[in-house]
Amino acid sequence: MEYPSKFVEEAVNQIAKLPGIGKKTALRLVLHLIKAKDENTYALTDALNNLRANIKFCKVCHTICDAEICSICSSHRRDRSIVCIVEDVKDVMAIENTAQFNGLYHVLGGVISPMNGIGPADLKIESLVNRVSDGQSEIKEVILALSPTMEGDTTSFYINKRIREITVKVSVIARGVPVGGDLEYADEITLGRSITGRTLFN
Amino acid sequence: MEYPSKFVEEAVNQIAKLPGIGKKTALRLVLHLIKAKDENTYALTDALNNLRANIKFCKVCHTICDAEICSICSSHRRDRSIVCIVEDVKDVMAIENTAQFNGLYHVLGGVISPMNGIGPADLKIESLVNRVSDGQSEIKEVILALSPTMEGDTTSFYINKRIREITVKVSVIARGVPVGGDLEYADEITLGRSITGRTLFN
Repeated sequence: MEYPSKFVEEAVNQIAKLPGIGKKTALRLVLHLIKAKDENTYALTDALNNLRANIKFCKVCHTICDAEICSICSSHRRDRSIVCIVEDVKDVMAIENTAQFNGLYHVLGGVISPMNGIGPADLKIESLVNRVSDGQSEIKEVILALSPTMEGDTTSFYINKRIREITVKVSVIARGVPVGGDLEYADEITLGRSITGRTLFN
Repeated sequence: MEYPSKFVEEAVNQIAKLPGIGKKTALRLVLHLIKAKDENTYALTDALNNLRANIKFCKVCHTICDAEICSICSSHRRDRSIVCIVEDVKDVMAIENTAQFNGLYHVLGGVISPMNGIGPADLKIESLVNRVSDGQSEIKEVILALSPTMEGDTTSFYINKRIREITVKVSVIARGVPVGGDLEYADEITLGRSITGRTLFN
């Protein structure tokens, strides 16, 4: 497609690099920005530049934060004996939203995926092993909360193998039928696991 | 939702202001930018800032361009006797892609829409009337190529009323069944118009 201006073309090309946004959507966004007030565009670009320049990763759990140590890791109200292993910061936000977990997190930054060329060394697994095996560590339990996919399971298996020798309990989040879901629509593997992993009715 | 960083929150809020992008998608884009190289974010923000700072509108046809007069209006190869009236620059690009039109354009910048508070004065209609009624004008035909919606039809009707007195031919793009479309799926109004507006088979 031929664009009416090289500035439009460059903006479209840059926006279309974002995941899930094609050239047509990008053009729509660009024309929206052109039509809107100047301040809107500058507010957007300032926010992105500030993000890029100021974003930090917690030195303990590797989540995204504004300081050296994130608010969860530095909080005195959190239970320091439990660490929940998650793939990325979205999972931290999702678990925080449930208000069912009061421990700490450890953000791996991905899962082991040979297809995408991601091995254990690309993730924050060494840092987790060091954190758990540290003499001053208060950690008593590690919860594996990775996605129930092949990559997630592989990563859970690998982490369990690495920290099994350390005297720490390793647990995994429950797999079963989702709450509110109709039983007949649950797939066989999920339903099967919900039966083998059944718990006492209380 | 609580964000792990105020920079993430601000970036999400700004991106979510774009049309068709909600907070969840915005967060996904922000996390993508954080994960990607620094240069990607800066290339994006530079492109948007350059767009905002340098974009111009053609003084003749009001389309988006890089100069005072756009490449179509300043071209010697275009037929200066026909002007096609369109809603916005996307329509110019769409018609140019058909390679079926060699005249000039006039971009209104919208259509009359009382529901959205857009009246004739908000559009480039006066500019069109001046352009057509100018003594030195070579324009012999005006093609109304607005969307076949209530707003588009209202705008076409208004423009026709304004330029009818000027000795210029006013035409409207054909409405009928789309090429490649199955007749039974065409709606009644379109099918009805395709019959009343039938042309000689050649």
